[in-house]
Amino acid sequence: MRAAIFRGSKDIIVGERPDPVIERPSDAVVRVVLACVCGSDLWYYRGESPHAVGSIGHEFIGVVEDVGSDVTGLARGDLVVAPFVYCDMSCPHCKAGATFACLHGGSFGNGEVDGGQGEAVLVPLAGSSLVKVPGSPSDHSHETLRSQLALSDVMCTGHHSAVCGRVDQGDTVAVVGDGAVGLSAVLAAKRLGAERIIALSRNPARQQLAREFGATDILAERGDEAIAAVMDLTDGIGVDAALECVGTGQSAGTAVAIARPGSTVGIVGAPHGVEIPFESNFWRGVGWQGSVAPARAYIPELMPDVLAGRMNPGRVFDYETDLEHITDAYAAMDERRAIKSLIRMGAP
Amino acid sequence: MRAAIFRGSKDIIVGERPDPVIERPSDAVVRVVLACVCGSDLWYYRGESPHAVGSIGHEFIGVVEDVGSDVTGLARGDLVVAPFVYCDMSCPHCKAGATFACLHGGSFGNGEVDGGQGEAVLVPLAGSSLVKVPGSPSDHSHETLRSQLALSDVMCTGHHSAVCGRVDQGDTVAVVGDGAVGLSAVLAAKRLGAERIIALSRNPARQQLAREFGATDILAERGDEAIAAVMDLTDGIGVDAALECVGTGQSAGTAVAIARPGSTVGIVGAPHGVEIPFESNFWRGVGWQGSVAPARAYIPELMPDVLAGRMNPGRVFDYETDLEHITDAYAAMDERRAIKSLIRMGAP
Repeated sequence: MRAAIFRGSKDIIVGERPDPVIERPSDAVVRVVLACVCGSDLWYYRGESPHAVGSIGHEFIGVVEDVGSDVTGLARGDLVVAPFVYCDMSCPHCKAGATFACLHGGSFGNGEVDGGQGEAVLVPLAGSSLVKVPGSPSDHSHETLRSQLALSDVMCTGHHSAVCGRVDQGDTVAVVGDGAVGLSAVLAAKRLGAERIIALSRNPARQQLAREFGATDILAERGDEAIAAVMDLTDGIGVDAALECVGTGQSAGTAVAIARPGSTVGIVGAPHGVEIPFESNFWRGVGWQGSVAPARAYIPELMPDVLAGRMNPGRVFDYETDLEHITDAYAAMDERRAIKSLIRMGAP
Repeated sequence: MRAAIFRGSKDIIVGERPDPVIERPSDAVVRVVLACVCGSDLWYYRGESPHAVGSIGHEFIGVVEDVGSDVTGLARGDLVVAPFVYCDMSCPHCKAGATFACLHGGSFGNGEVDGGQGEAVLVPLAGSSLVKVPGSPSDHSHETLRSQLALSDVMCTGHHSAVCGRVDQGDTVAVVGDGAVGLSAVLAAKRLGAERIIALSRNPARQQLAREFGATDILAERGDEAIAAVMDLTDGIGVDAALECVGTGQSAGTAVAIARPGSTVGIVGAPHGVEIPFESNFWRGVGWQGSVAPARAYIPELMPDVLAGRMNPGRVFDYETDLEHITDAYAAMDERRAIKSLIRMGAP
């Protein structure tokens, strides 16, 4: 099959990988319909985080082509969403909701395990990992499929920031970061009932989408000026929930500084050079919670809103191409010409 | 009136302070019935944290002797519990439950504001700060009065660790610290439905009280050995809620290390030399939340259990004396002969 192959910094090619076939009774083979490029893939692309040579891409939806003898609840022809970490849903961590830490789980597209950025994926622990989408694949519009793809990672990650930040009805929320995760966090905060949502963004297209996703206030400031602007907007009190969706020292510092006493900063930006001082924040009563998202745990909760059209997280995809042009998809995001790039892989 | 006066490290005397009289319409004068010495007072006593010369002590219960013209809900003769931080209950921080950050609040016994370790206290913002105990002062046994005193700070602080750590029904909880706060955290975790409570203690008397408060497992290990022992007890998973009740680098490190992925460490030990690394804990999915406790917000919830005898947090007081012997009360705690020292100030 054809698949993206990571060879090194700015060296991702489209080449041949073995056609996946069932190896373990718990496997499934999924033909990929839509995949995309993650902000975290950019770290590898830029050489700022290590990545093994081989398969890449961890977000995809597709159609089941084959299932192992132990797989229940899935059949050939089912449309499925893959959470970006596969998991058994039966270990203590999965039972506690921390599917990202599954004792038997792992990541797609890590060099060895097939990636979403390819024509097909051999999915381990398929029965517990994949989430079946109701209906037949051809029942769904391209728009709905795009939003289902967003549930594979980015929308769940935005939602996770809001869950970690304990967003509640009527809250004032600030989202630090206007990438696809930050925009998804705006949507998640709105969905959870936030009344006022302050989005930090200086890009007109992203500002526009943030507003459409529910942002009530847009601030173009950064760093200390952003902190001052948020404190000004909140009469010096700070926000009920600060959601950090970037992963840099500056963005984390901003999020912590604008959080009101007693609140928990929700942090989902994969950290690069982040430190958060403990003692000063203890005395302010500002803690934090975050991690990679337990997408598998969230997809069933978010799916009905996507299927009913109540939210459309797929709108974060503003660049679309096919597998043979995947290097363009990376370049568009790297150069910030695109919020998030979608790869059409095959018919649903 | 007679009151303890802080003059410097290991230099607390009992001397004369002005009799409190109403100065502002929101004041009340409270005659102190019971007071006590806080673990944080020991930091001042030992010269490890600064404290102004003057009044000291922030935990007390007493009887209202006079109220200002704006005070509602309180009358002369009422028995009241003082939360250790007075507050207006109407500012945005108080409304959000973070009474420790009240925009108009402050601490008792800070050198200027009267302390609990004296015969009487001029209480600012009395109507919103003081919590009236139902019934007449003479209705209550000495045992119940001691437990009401515990609500002034120590029991609310233990409860806060459990709230910050999101203790839930059926949880496995570990409490790091066997001081009065740690023991109160055991009681709080039990009250919130924890099924297994692991207490870290090597002192036989404290181990015994921990068991009586609900601890199911006692570990005498410290540091890396304590971490290994907790991980062993939990089959390598870690605990659902780790509660840090000491405030040292070692205790915080232990609490964070034994927390399971996706959990939030509840931290209430006033920190001295604590740092918690961010990135490694982000990848584990272990966050933290903590602060000084919003006692005023918790007292109404905890009081019914004290009045009904369902919990008896006053059992943390294992040394009792009168005001004239208050230096003995400090020394007993400083030398770890006492868990917590109570000061009998006057008849209820």
